Amino acid sequence: MLDQHAAGPRTPGTATRGETVPTVPPASTAAEAVDVTALLERGRTLATPVLRAAIDRLAAPMDTVSAYHFGWIDAEGNPTAGDGGKAVRPALAVLSAEVTGAAPEVGIPGAVAVELVHNFSLLHDDLMDGDEQRRHRDTVWKVHGPAQAILVGDALFALANEVLLELGTVAAGRATRRLTSATRALIDGQAQDISYEHRDRVSVEECLEMEGNKTGALLACASSIGAVLGGADDRTADTLERYGYHLGLAFQAVDDLLGIWGDPVSTGKQTWSDLRQRKKSLPVVAALAAGGSASDQLGEILAADAKSSDFENFSEEEFAARAALIEEAGGRDWTAGEARRQHTIAVEALDAIDMPDRVRARFTALADFVVVRKR
Amino acid sequence: MLDQHAAGPRTPGTATRGETVPTVPPASTAAEAVDVTALLERGRTLATPVLRAAIDRLAAPMDTVSAYHFGWIDAEGNPTAGDGGKAVRPALAVLSAEVTGAAPEVGIPGAVAVELVHNFSLLHDDLMDGDEQRRHRDTVWKVHGPAQAILVGDALFALANEVLLELGTVAAGRATRRLTSATRALIDGQAQDISYEHRDRVSVEECLEMEGNKTGALLACASSIGAVLGGADDRTADTLERYGYHLGLAFQAVDDLLGIWGDPVSTGKQTWSDLRQRKKSLPVVAALAAGGSASDQLGEILAADAKSSDFENFSEEEFAARAALIEEAGGRDWTAGEARRQHTIAVEALDAIDMPDRVRARFTALADFVVVRKR
Repeated sequence: MLDQHAAGPRTPGTATRGETVPTVPPASTAAEAVDVTALLERGRTLATPVLRAAIDRLAAPMDTVSAYHFGWIDAEGNPTAGDGGKAVRPALAVLSAEVTGAAPEVGIPGAVAVELVHNFSLLHDDLMDGDEQRRHRDTVWKVHGPAQAILVGDALFALANEVLLELGTVAAGRATRRLTSATRALIDGQAQDISYEHRDRVSVEECLEMEGNKTGALLACASSIGAVLGGADDRTADTLERYGYHLGLAFQAVDDLLGIWGDPVSTGKQTWSDLRQRKKSLPVVAALAAGGSASDQLGEILAADAKSSDFENFSEEEFAARAALIEEAGGRDWTAGEARRQHTIAVEALDAIDMPDRVRARFTALADFVVVRKR
Repeated sequence: MLDQHAAGPRTPGTATRGETVPTVPPASTAAEAVDVTALLERGRTLATPVLRAAIDRLAAPMDTVSAYHFGWIDAEGNPTAGDGGKAVRPALAVLSAEVTGAAPEVGIPGAVAVELVHNFSLLHDDLMDGDEQRRHRDTVWKVHGPAQAILVGDALFALANEVLLELGTVAAGRATRRLTSATRALIDGQAQDISYEHRDRVSVEECLEMEGNKTGALLACASSIGAVLGGADDRTADTLERYGYHLGLAFQAVDDLLGIWGDPVSTGKQTWSDLRQRKKSLPVVAALAAGGSASDQLGEILAADAKSSDFENFSEEEFAARAALIEEAGGRDWTAGEARRQHTIAVEALDAIDMPDRVRARFTALADFVVVRKR
């Protein structure tokens, strides 16, 4: 399995942390005319005021805690510039409305609902995983306590449904049903992620299934929800979901690369972040599955790490050595190849349906962006 | 405010814990012919198989953790008889379908969805509040850890929407919208409950608002959701919600009495449970608002308690003394009167709409049951 899309002969890992992610060239060139930055900005600009208005409905102090989480205020309540994340999901949601010929604005409630569900999951996952940092800042449970992280997560989840259902249309009911399925998958994925932490070995297939649930399902929903709100039929919505699902797997493969070799200045995470958390991410499981001396050596080291009581105090060099072994065993190359493969499936999925060329080019450009990003 | 429905002259508190709740006679006699036990059993019998099938959809280990929470298995995974609670909500949901002339079965997805939301909130609230016991058993976070309590709560919430929306009807969309509003209120209520814990004083009005959110909103939804699924118009649904909301306030007033003076053998909670948790429940806030020497004395004692580092080691006698002061200040009588008043509003609300006499008698009988229960 590992070789089916291997990217040429392996070279022993020489790249160091701080370099950018290994080159993942866009599979298409149709997108060259698209300004992705403007596309992301459009999604953010359309969605943010509606998102803020939704958050304002929450009872105190949930409104404030949410505003902190979204990066609109700091821990003391002062307004901040805040980056608010990459905003890929809102960009996809408003773009998907255009598939049906509707205005991008038709997708706004979908964009907001998806962002709310995404952030509900971040709030709860950060607490469950004990993650203390997110987007260069302390996580909500660190600043406002575990109860607020649980409660505000719940509130965002409920608000997501409310924002859609108050539209009162049949299309909104269909959109909510798809969002609910995506949310269930998201929760299944988190359950798998937690259970894998307690296991010695996780297969590449299990890892891909988990990442499909955790990341693919909601990106699938983001990529189709605007179209559903615009009145698209099930076939169109299913096709857009297929695009988004594989885009999500490409996204996650890149995330897994960044989680080991990403530049902390860009990612906002610690160096070797996923290794510190013993995450069985794609590069790790692929390296372990590859066989060979580096793979075997890595397996022995990680098995010893799992029993180590001193793991948290490991030095930079010790994590760097593990990263080098993962790379030598081919885990880094395989994951970069997987990102390309999923990117291709995503873009080609779009061929099954009609849409304006301009809209298709934008979907392709967003897919290209996802695999070359550095954070 | 406190005197507007005071139940005759106050008598100094002499009742002790272990006695049943102060007599709250049913306001109506129309219900005498109704077998409430059979009515509760009907709701349970109709809803449980569908609820179990929904839980079976969850990925491992969430299905097992849910089954533990619902009392279907013990901590080791062995099947148990389990009491599964009073099942007032499912009984109301299937009964409400009959308002429209539909079969009670029409209300089943509503009953299941409301039970799922109710149990989502129990899982999360028990963790947030640090409650270690529920229905005579260790809570989920105690047995399976905080992460599972968060995750399974999330899954039940998502499943509630799924069970309704997969019906694919316009009525199901309307029902989901009402359930979402109720869930938002539930979360607002929990936010208020948590914030009140950190305050010296809470007014009776604030306490009633919090209890309306925490308990009234979901009972309102339970009392109307079957009717909505049966095609009821908004006026009918709103009227049934009004019944359920005030029934919820009556329910909660009785719960607050049981939380101080309930028999632990019946309630499954510790003696003086709410006092141990410093809960600002209705009897407490009413006693503090009443004025007079017992009220003043109580205020001083509770203010000192709030600063005490030794509070957790207080003796039975110390809690009993606080309960006696609450009673002497009129908090117990006022709360019993409040239960009666809310019961009356609930039953009278039903007069605004037509429904079969048999159905009306059953709503009334369920309201009577709620105010005379001992657990």
